[in-house]
Amino acid sequence: MAYDDQNIFARILRGELPAIKVYEDERVLAFMDIMPQAEGHTLVIPKSPAITLLDLAPEEAAYTIQIVQKVAKAIETALQVEGIVLMQLSGVAAGQTVPHVHFHLIPSSVHELGKHAAQMGDQDKIRALAEKIKAAL
Amino acid sequence: MAYDDQNIFARILRGELPAIKVYEDERVLAFMDIMPQAEGHTLVIPKSPAITLLDLAPEEAAYTIQIVQKVAKAIETALQVEGIVLMQLSGVAAGQTVPHVHFHLIPSSVHELGKHAAQMGDQDKIRALAEKIKAAL
Repeated sequence: MAYDDQNIFARILRGELPAIKVYEDERVLAFMDIMPQAEGHTLVIPKSPAITLLDLAPEEAAYTIQIVQKVAKAIETALQVEGIVLMQLSGVAAGQTVPHVHFHLIPSSVHELGKHAAQMGDQDKIRALAEKIKAAL
Repeated sequence: MAYDDQNIFARILRGELPAIKVYEDERVLAFMDIMPQAEGHTLVIPKSPAITLLDLAPEEAAYTIQIVQKVAKAIETALQVEGIVLMQLSGVAAGQTVPHVHFHLIPSSVHELGKHAAQMGDQDKIRALAEKIKAAL
């Protein structure tokens, strides 16, 4: 399958769509999930145009997971959560909704997760959480 | 929290407990989950003694995710699955059951997942799946 450069994360990366960003560098962007499965649900994506983790260049995966660690620590500190679920869905059959590889960081308990990409969150609340996470980075 | 070197993955790494291995090198081990949430459920762990992804040295995380990619591709090829869920649970509150960092690779749909670490699988069937994955590596 060819990479669709009109997917929403590609458009966010180009600045065509807004995002509540918590971290950005030349290779990676981290931003709040607007349909959070738990408070503080954050996405980390490589800027490299790959659909799934299986397509992503190994060196980009290696770099991205280190930013995932960094953001996870900031979430833990900022939101004082006890547990974090890292989830990465490769393929529509696995529940992937946006065809650009992304790592979910979801605070707290997997057993309490809301349904994936099901319900829009309170954007002001999400923005406030983002500020806390950014401050801890 | 101090690393407990009696946890079952530490014991597997020392060869004190058996595991159905699909990949091993000096830094990483991949083996079948004996309580699979779906057919082909595989675990990838760094050998480095870290409890969670947040504790793991960044260079070990970087290496491990590349093996995760490699094993995920082998699962996709060997078992002809359409989707793969990568899940990594940090902390008991997130559902982590063994205090050694591990990446779950779970074929197919997140919406069809069995409960985490809930029910023992058919070990012969798991062994046969492991052989297929190994052959694709």
